[in-house]
Amino acid sequence: MQQTSDIPSEAHRAPFTPKFDAAGLLTAIVTDADTGAILMLAHMDAEALAKTRETGLAHFHSRSRARLWMKGETSGNTLAVERILVDCDQDALVLECRAAGPACHTGAPSCFYRELAGDVLRPVNT
Amino acid sequence: MQQTSDIPSEAHRAPFTPKFDAAGLLTAIVTDADTGAILMLAHMDAEALAKTRETGLAHFHSRSRARLWMKGETSGNTLAVERILVDCDQDALVLECRAAGPACHTGAPSCFYRELAGDVLRPVNT
Repeated sequence: MQQTSDIPSEAHRAPFTPKFDAAGLLTAIVTDADTGAILMLAHMDAEALAKTRETGLAHFHSRSRARLWMKGETSGNTLAVERILVDCDQDALVLECRAAGPACHTGAPSCFYRELAGDVLRPVNT
Repeated sequence: MQQTSDIPSEAHRAPFTPKFDAAGLLTAIVTDADTGAILMLAHMDAEALAKTRETGLAHFHSRSRARLWMKGETSGNTLAVERILVDCDQDALVLECRAAGPACHTGAPSCFYRELAGDVLRPVNT
């Protein structure tokens, strides 16, 4: 138990009861399963969550297109989900993934490739 | 340039023009500036973003309470923001922070202290 001593005891083996927001969505953070780097952020409705769990490949709900999409369905840059972490109030997930290619539609490995410097964005030098 | 060769050239020194969603919010992922661990996820409206940039301490917009809140305003567990990363479409941020205490209201260092195992949540053994 030493490794979990700072985790609330009531949380142990709680049921998974995702709390979708008013729009029916959870927020999902995608990370690289090996490095922990944050790759992208997207949203999941119940259908996307179910498809992700069923297939092992990350599916999301596009707010702009109002439909289910599998990451990589056109680019081939799929995300194989290794593990799903759930936050304290069950409205956000971390998907630890192995990415088949760049996660960002721009071709960058991560969508978070810029930092805020004053009022401009500059590439992250890492 | 070698370190940024995989970053789209048009993105260099782009203006910061945050894209708030229909509810006037950005999504903000808080990470530990030293370890990169994901600590929590919250939302920011324009006021919370301005307060964060002005004070250097993370402020958010509570959707449930419909008001501005400074992380740690009651617990003392503030988040000093070291750097802000911005995603490709400018609707999500990563706040790299130094946490004054546990980020989660449960007392756990991170809100993401459980993993999904079948239909239950179990503590992460890391």
